[in-house]
Formats: sequence, structure tokens, C-alpha cells
Amino acid sequence: MEKRYYPYEDFLADTKDLTKQIDWKFDSIIAIARGGMSLAHLLGEYYNIREVYSINTIGYEDTTKLASVKVFNIPELNESKSVLIVDDIVDSGDTLVEVLKVLRQMYPTVIFKTASLFYKKSARIAPDWYVREADKWIDFFWSVDLNRKI
Amino acid sequence: MEKRYYPYEDFLADTKDLTKQIDWKFDSIIAIARGGMSLAHLLGEYYNIREVYSINTIGYEDTTKLASVKVFNIPELNESKSVLIVDDIVDSGDTLVEVLKVLRQMYPTVIFKTASLFYKKSARIAPDWYVREADKWIDFFWSVDLNRKI
Repeated sequence: MEKRYYPYEDFLADTKDLTKQIDWKFDSIIAIARGGMSLAHLLGEYYNIREVYSINTIGYEDTTKLASVKVFNIPELNESKSVLIVDDIVDSGDTLVEVLKVLRQMYPTVIFKTASLFYKKSARIAPDWYVREADKWIDFFWSVDLNRKI
Repeated sequence: MEKRYYPYEDFLADTKDLTKQIDWKFDSIIAIARGGMSLAHLLGEYYNIREVYSINTIGYEDTTKLASVKVFNIPELNESKSVLIVDDIVDSGDTLVEVLKVLRQMYPTVIFKTASLFYKKSARIAPDWYVREADKWIDFFWSVDLNRKI
């Protein structure tokens, strides 16, 4: 598949773009690990929100060979009213759908919205805010820079 | 206080330095949020470790006016044997001391080691690995880049 290298500079510009799009006040941020962690870090600093959490997911095939996503390390949100969930890319959408389902079940009074850098049109769910459509494989800087010559 | 801007390029070089220092196999990484999140993200990708978690702390003054640190959102480590805890800077050391205390109480059979980019000699605890001594205020790129003109 065609690849696109996504350097820090593009990430910074796109994260800035996200902050211009997001017309909503939130009090907490959840990164879907690992992909959303750098984005959550910068956004937490930018909005001066110390309530920056992460959540983990693992994909597996269940007994009927359907792809499933298990969600774990769910943060405490007892003080939260509005939470932005962030990830690097919404690809199939399976992860985001399951994360939203689990969080909404557990915290029915909290409002959750979602943001990502990339979004694939074929995904089952669109994030509330995103910057770019993904049409090729993306080599994010956090995945490849440590292995490049520096 | 004198300030030092710490750009992404320095972070990348220092993280590379950390990977050369760390002569230990670990199966999980915990970022102390928010500061350790970008570092944990890159290290997780570099070591191909999907078990990248975060932990939260909040500093407060207790009734005796002593500074205390509360640790919360402790990740599940039932499958973990050796865990690298990472933060951007070990400053007073209060946070790291408390995080280690809580994790070792909860998971007495897990081995925890620690790494940071910066370390202040006056801290109560030294991380197992670190890259630079901190002698001035550090403006990390994740704290300031979104507010700079780009």
C-alpha cells in the first residue's frame, strides 16, 4: 500500500486545526492508547486540562470469528461532565464504537465527543472532529522517528 | 527563572539516548500523565509494546500542610512482570516516590523501573535512567508549540 510519512510538523499543524474546529467545552480528555497519547498530551496542555487519561483496547476474534474489541483501564470520570476522546485515526471505527459504548454505559450522564487526526470514509463511525481523510498507510512520526537516523 | 525551550528534535534525540541506556527488558510502560505521555507513546512503538498505560497524580496540601500526592487511575497489571514508568522530568521526586509506593503495594511481584528525560539533582529519588540534568525551567514542545505561530 502507498505510504505517507507524517512528521511532527504536520501533526502540530493538524492539532492546531483541530483546536480551531472544536467548538465545545470539555473538562477531561481520554486518549485511546497508544495512538491518541501524543495528541491528548498536547491538547491537555493547550486547554490547560490536567484531567488527561488513557484507555486501552485490544482486538481479538471471538468464537464466531467476528472481530471484537475489549476495552480496559477505564478511567474514573466521577468528576467529569464532558469528555473528549481522541485517537490518531478512525480506521474501521470498531475501536471507537466499542470505547463509546463502554464509556456511555458506565457514565450515562457524561457527554462524550470524539476527535481524530485521520478518518477513513469507510469507518462505521465518524468522529465529531477530524482533520484529514486517510487514503493510504500513515507512518506516524511516533512510530518511525526513533528508527530513523538522527 | 531562566528558560530552556525543548523542541521535538531534542526530545527525539534524548529518547533515542534513553533507549541506548535502558539495558533491561520490560513488558509494559506506564506514563505519568500528562508529562510522560509522549515519551511513553514513542517508547511503546519503538519496543513494539502495546501495553502502554497511564497513571494520574494530583498534588495537594493535607491537613498538616504537608505536600502530598494522590495517585489514581492505576492500570491493571495482572499480566505484567516488568514495568517501565516514564515521566518527562523528576523534579522534587514526590510524584515518582508516591507512584512507586502505590504500584509496589498493589503489585508486589512486579518489578518497576523508572526513566525520565530530565532529572533534578535535588530530587528525593533518581530515576533508573535519565538523559539530562535540569537546571532551569523547561518549556517542553508539547506545552508551548500549539501556542507558537506555525
